[in-house]
Amino acid sequence: MKQLPLSKVYQLLEPGPVVLLTTARKGRANLMTMSWHMMIEFEPPQVACIVSNADYSFAALRATGDCVIAIPARKLASKVVKVGNSSGRDIDKFAAFGLTKMPAARVASPLIADCFANLECKVTDTRFVNKYNLFILEVLKAWTDPAQPNPKAIHHRGYGTFIVDGKTINLKSRMR
Amino acid sequence: MKQLPLSKVYQLLEPGPVVLLTTARKGRANLMTMSWHMMIEFEPPQVACIVSNADYSFAALRATGDCVIAIPARKLASKVVKVGNSSGRDIDKFAAFGLTKMPAARVASPLIADCFANLECKVTDTRFVNKYNLFILEVLKAWTDPAQPNPKAIHHRGYGTFIVDGKTINLKSRMR
Repeated sequence: MKQLPLSKVYQLLEPGPVVLLTTARKGRANLMTMSWHMMIEFEPPQVACIVSNADYSFAALRATGDCVIAIPARKLASKVVKVGNSSGRDIDKFAAFGLTKMPAARVASPLIADCFANLECKVTDTRFVNKYNLFILEVLKAWTDPAQPNPKAIHHRGYGTFIVDGKTINLKSRMR
Repeated sequence: MKQLPLSKVYQLLEPGPVVLLTTARKGRANLMTMSWHMMIEFEPPQVACIVSNADYSFAALRATGDCVIAIPARKLASKVVKVGNSSGRDIDKFAAFGLTKMPAARVASPLIADCFANLECKVTDTRFVNKYNLFILEVLKAWTDPAQPNPKAIHHRGYGTFIVDGKTINLKSRMR
């Protein structure tokens, strides 16, 4: 894994990919599939996300204030669906679906070695959790996998329908 | 424009497309380009978005509590960039870039006839605006353009680089 400057983190999340969210509580790692997230600040990068209180990850995230956002490429799509269709209450999803944990540098939650990017995050604001299940995160450290130089992310359209990244176009713009 | 059931709105925004946000204040319509948004509830559909207090739209959105989220397809990408690189302080962007306003049913902000989807929204919570420029919206009415049945949305990666929707894949899933 290669470190990514924090100023570039928004370029990974702004396009709206499906991500995996890992947590760790009492020595037990878990992960879930997540599509409801957005950037809220460039640098230090801050992210808002919804983790439903029906999800097993909710209690871990709230208790530890610690998570990793990992971005899977197209080739992991079927595992992403399996992760989304199961609960950490019942199984160890890493073992069940053959995903590889790696220790993170700044947080207790694991990186996912199979993903093309991993963002180590801490929860910085929980005031919107009760009403909206909305967590504010700060990204502390970011990693990309040099072995996946041009990954195609996936975007969820509901009920297992995903749009795969298509071609890239570049237009002259002053927008950051 | 054809009405879209509110239960399907998340399928438009969850993939993370670049959108246009229209406002209207004192009889003057404006629009901006926005990528920092996410779903926060299925139905009635609620959306969180960041509108910077540096943007001209900020004051209008805050004062009126009224906006439209319009989703442009690939063919509008160059206009999307022009909208993002200019300010409603200086010009009438609808006129300047040849975008067509249409009256909305439930809000004062205009629909954009050129876009493949339009979501009429009201601001329902401003408690996070001071700290994060984060607005909570509820979608009151949703429209799609039957003349654009299979639109390709665009996703911003920063500095005028966009990813165009690629192919769609369908995997068996219980995820909504």
